[in-house]
Amino acid sequence: MTSTLPTTKMANAIRALAMDAVQKANSGHPGMPMGMADIAVALWSRHYRHNPANPHWINRDRFILSNGHGSMLHYALLHLSGYALSIEDIKQFRQLHSKTAGHPEVHVTPGVETTTGPLGQGLTNAVGMALAEWLLAAEFNQSGFDVVDHHTYAFVGDGCLMEGISHEACSLAGTLRLSKLIVMYDDNGISIDGRVEGWFKDDTPMRFEAYGWNVIRAVDGHDVDAVDAAIAAAKKSDKPTLICCKSVIGKGAPNLQGGDKVHGAALGDIEVAATRAAMDWPYAPFEIPADVYAAWDAKAQGLQQEGEWDALFRAYGERYPQQAGELLRRMSGELPANFNATVQAYIASCVDKKETIATRKASQNAIQALAPVLPEFLGGSADLTGSNLTNWKECVAVRVDQPGNHINYGVREFGMSAMLNGIALHGGYIPFGATFLTFSDYSRNALRMAALMKLRSIFVFTHDSIGLGEDGPTHQSVEHVSSLRLIPNLDNWRPCDTVESAVAWSHAVTRRHGPSTLIFSRQNLQYQERTAEQITHIHRGGYVLKDAPDAKAILIATGSEVELAVKAADELAKQGVPVRVVSMPSTDVFDRQDAAYKASVLTKGLPRVAVEAGVTDFWYKYVGLDGAVIGIDTFGESAPAGVLFKHFGITVEHVVDAVKKTLG
Amino acid sequence: MTSTLPTTKMANAIRALAMDAVQKANSGHPGMPMGMADIAVALWSRHYRHNPANPHWINRDRFILSNGHGSMLHYALLHLSGYALSIEDIKQFRQLHSKTAGHPEVHVTPGVETTTGPLGQGLTNAVGMALAEWLLAAEFNQSGFDVVDHHTYAFVGDGCLMEGISHEACSLAGTLRLSKLIVMYDDNGISIDGRVEGWFKDDTPMRFEAYGWNVIRAVDGHDVDAVDAAIAAAKKSDKPTLICCKSVIGKGAPNLQGGDKVHGAALGDIEVAATRAAMDWPYAPFEIPADVYAAWDAKAQGLQQEGEWDALFRAYGERYPQQAGELLRRMSGELPANFNATVQAYIASCVDKKETIATRKASQNAIQALAPVLPEFLGGSADLTGSNLTNWKECVAVRVDQPGNHINYGVREFGMSAMLNGIALHGGYIPFGATFLTFSDYSRNALRMAALMKLRSIFVFTHDSIGLGEDGPTHQSVEHVSSLRLIPNLDNWRPCDTVESAVAWSHAVTRRHGPSTLIFSRQNLQYQERTAEQITHIHRGGYVLKDAPDAKAILIATGSEVELAVKAADELAKQGVPVRVVSMPSTDVFDRQDAAYKASVLTKGLPRVAVEAGVTDFWYKYVGLDGAVIGIDTFGESAPAGVLFKHFGITVEHVVDAVKKTLG
Repeated sequence: MTSTLPTTKMANAIRALAMDAVQKANSGHPGMPMGMADIAVALWSRHYRHNPANPHWINRDRFILSNGHGSMLHYALLHLSGYALSIEDIKQFRQLHSKTAGHPEVHVTPGVETTTGPLGQGLTNAVGMALAEWLLAAEFNQSGFDVVDHHTYAFVGDGCLMEGISHEACSLAGTLRLSKLIVMYDDNGISIDGRVEGWFKDDTPMRFEAYGWNVIRAVDGHDVDAVDAAIAAAKKSDKPTLICCKSVIGKGAPNLQGGDKVHGAALGDIEVAATRAAMDWPYAPFEIPADVYAAWDAKAQGLQQEGEWDALFRAYGERYPQQAGELLRRMSGELPANFNATVQAYIASCVDKKETIATRKASQNAIQALAPVLPEFLGGSADLTGSNLTNWKECVAVRVDQPGNHINYGVREFGMSAMLNGIALHGGYIPFGATFLTFSDYSRNALRMAALMKLRSIFVFTHDSIGLGEDGPTHQSVEHVSSLRLIPNLDNWRPCDTVESAVAWSHAVTRRHGPSTLIFSRQNLQYQERTAEQITHIHRGGYVLKDAPDAKAILIATGSEVELAVKAADELAKQGVPVRVVSMPSTDVFDRQDAAYKASVLTKGLPRVAVEAGVTDFWYKYVGLDGAVIGIDTFGESAPAGVLFKHFGITVEHVVDAVKKTLG
Repeated sequence: MTSTLPTTKMANAIRALAMDAVQKANSGHPGMPMGMADIAVALWSRHYRHNPANPHWINRDRFILSNGHGSMLHYALLHLSGYALSIEDIKQFRQLHSKTAGHPEVHVTPGVETTTGPLGQGLTNAVGMALAEWLLAAEFNQSGFDVVDHHTYAFVGDGCLMEGISHEACSLAGTLRLSKLIVMYDDNGISIDGRVEGWFKDDTPMRFEAYGWNVIRAVDGHDVDAVDAAIAAAKKSDKPTLICCKSVIGKGAPNLQGGDKVHGAALGDIEVAATRAAMDWPYAPFEIPADVYAAWDAKAQGLQQEGEWDALFRAYGERYPQQAGELLRRMSGELPANFNATVQAYIASCVDKKETIATRKASQNAIQALAPVLPEFLGGSADLTGSNLTNWKECVAVRVDQPGNHINYGVREFGMSAMLNGIALHGGYIPFGATFLTFSDYSRNALRMAALMKLRSIFVFTHDSIGLGEDGPTHQSVEHVSSLRLIPNLDNWRPCDTVESAVAWSHAVTRRHGPSTLIFSRQNLQYQERTAEQITHIHRGGYVLKDAPDAKAILIATGSEVELAVKAADELAKQGVPVRVVSMPSTDVFDRQDAAYKASVLTKGLPRVAVEAGVTDFWYKYVGLDGAVIGIDTFGESAPAGVLFKHFGITVEHVVDAVKKTLG
């Protein structure tokens, strides 16, 4: 874009929109947009490759506002550069169902690449995106045809860099030399509590050099040419780059700039007026003069940039038609045509084999079966590959000099999970990553963000209960399965055998608009016999695994406790008490079934007993005040698994007693 | 300790115990104990000040095994140096109810200072302990009387240093120059997935220098004298020190050392025999020769060291009797004699004032009222002090050159929470720290660890629902209150007004052996009238706030929804439907009440409707299959709070309708 308009005026347009929108809403964060306005001018008017008319252009650069509280910066940029975000939308900042939410939300606002606000995660999403870009380029580009070739830019503040996840993500980004990742650090010395030096004295450039990054120090964040030059240099580096921009928070507000009061509250009418005067900005609120719009307008340039890429891609398609089609399929998120047949054949083979194995092994077998038809599978583990069993025979471990499809994320559960989200957002891959179920705690907010963003991120959690054994209570999940079920839009699966594990994987892969957790045992689980109809019912989340004519009660179980429920039912039958056994691998999916189906599984009036080797509270939802729950409401213990199941009373005898007691 | 025994033989005793115990249990991690054995010799035989006969000596050095999977290292050290941990205990490694659990557990094994295993948290506990030591010394030491004067030593591995929490903790430790913290990094280049260079290429010494640490590089971790010299140098530094020890994992096992296979599995009989031969260790499993025991025995020296301190403390007590008594009280965890009277007076003042304010403000008022009689209060916030309202008028912000009693933890939720645990473990303080409720996700495993360890850590979470308003779904809790209730031994309080907030604070402070969360609103909440008896019943977690003769139903509510339930009850009364309102600020505490009390609150047979601005699943435990729950089973939205309560149907009308529908 070429324009003769002074860059200060372009930046002041951002400042004015930000302060006016926050003032109108009487809510929001003016300090960051005003402080980073000049940095944004340098990036968006001189480097950022995008097409406002098509926010989904697959080779666009990605822009991530990791310090998402400064959302008005992003909204101003999208509005000014020509996205479908009108001045009326800006006026609706932070109002119900507007396109300008409190924090940037993907799928709500055109041009927003990820939902940010929880600090550090946007930066980590950006690392995931840059990783996806690198791997996808390695898969698809051909000599002379760099059809995947774009940068990922992230804005971050002190908050993002204090968060632990920034360490996890940036350490791995440095190790893998993700050179197309460029991070602009808003080094304004202020966080909510005041001047950061009281609690944050890191030499941040040195820290990032320790990660193997290219660091550009002490750039004047209000000198557009200096920032421009730094970005140009960053693009030439063979490492990820951190550009440290010294800036003044709330720049332009004469009485508040440089202090923490400008961070998260409206300036107030008096300071807004003073800022207008100080910036020589005589326009009414939400009025942007035509020359400013003209200078910012990126539509023509975007059309041209995407047009050039279209031409390149057409030529690529002529020369490499199979690859071109495949890249488009992959980026669209559609599964290959032979996916369903592959799943069905694999399930049939599980039925044939009737294997009694750990479900983590059943999971690996499912991955092994699906991987040949799913080149978009991008697996990984947080340093537990041999325990989580996320790898498969043909997978290639990703290394700095070796693109591949299985990632050793290191001991970085939260970083891994937010990177999965970034990969899913970028497109081209179906990412999955694993750790022990208990350490889902470390990554919990990234799971929440995946659910909020409706991403196809797949979180694999193994060693799912006291069945983990001797590692003891620090590693034994008791509350985790239930607590994951509380996160809206997250589908959680705890399968009981090879067949349910296969269905769970197929569900997770097929689910386009939401994440799944796949929760597996360390120990062997008994294979369960089923009819063909029962197998189709697994997809409904809960189903009758074993029925009895005149059943007097319903036993509900998941995962490792299903075989226990089946044995208890056998014992009860011997004692003249017929009961039904319901396997409920996914309560989330079961809850979405129609009322008639649900009533056919959990027949009204039949007393119910649930059994799961974890906390009991959740299960009263299904058994009611008159039912019983066999579970564990304390932490685990350190001992062999078999000893623990007895110690905690997760036994056939106990289930039998509970049913009889419930029947009175 | 002086001994002529070669240090290698001392180290080999650790190696033998570790490999034999793991072999016997056929479970555990021999690699780390064998690799760090020489480092342990240097620290424990030449520097570590402790008294095996009294693991509770208040001025002992603290030793933290942050890489807790190497638990056999710690057990070997405790056994050899003379703690009440017999060779029989060692033989019971990883068996039910033994003193030698899979990972080290405080309160289970004498001499274990904190429960470790979840990586990075032990290191962070250590930072909390070193912080507590510094602050306590500043409070109590007098010229010539350094009665609080000890070091905190932590062993860490690559896993701890990859975890994000290590960044949060070590950045703050550097900023505050916690010079009595000495961390020994087991730089063996191996993690579970193999050679770490594929996923972890940090220049760790540079990274820690960026945090302002003293770093001692490239120490030979198998040269006891070199490690000894490094520790001696570290003790002289005015910064926290990282000692980087190059080591060989599984050192001593001739065929497995230096590889990932020795990390987490028994060596096997053949390799155990080969190791015995290679180490020239002809003794039977669990046999330790007398000269080795003699060389390790720390009992006499410990008695002497504690004896010298006792003499110092006696002299201190003569000169500063008030301070000496107070230090002993503080370290014992007993509350001051006037605590209860202060609480009662404060509750009475709340009843007098009848203020309708945000409960986060009510919380600050409670802190303000209690702080004068609780010098052990050590508050803080993860960079949201002005929002969480954790500070009080007289509090002193902790800075590098200024000890105090309120900590700006920075944007480090997980680090803060694990530091609270370290402070609580050290003793002398009742620590509390705050963030927004949604970001409890970031710190969730530290809350779990506090509950597992039965610590008096107090976690303050404000902005507890959609009542947070315009910041939107990333910041609005819906699942969090319920999901915290699932963690065993964690008491969660969501008070509805000033009086309940005061009771919640008093409960959290009084609860010696378990953590509490205190969950507060952003918005104003209506003051509720109560009788004196009702006020005493708040302590029971749930109570009848408003009864009706011939009540036809029970409304259960918490926090901001209590006033809504009361209004709904008024409306229902007008319509001829008398209902009871139960306020349930803590389901955890209510569940522990006797059956008669519980039945008096939730009378059997009365239909129930629960209302809470969050996910509904949990509440079926109280309302059953025939009751109703008014809540929010999706994520929130970005809009003003009042708009959102209407949008999500958390309204008087909706509650009234639900009750009538439930009554049929």
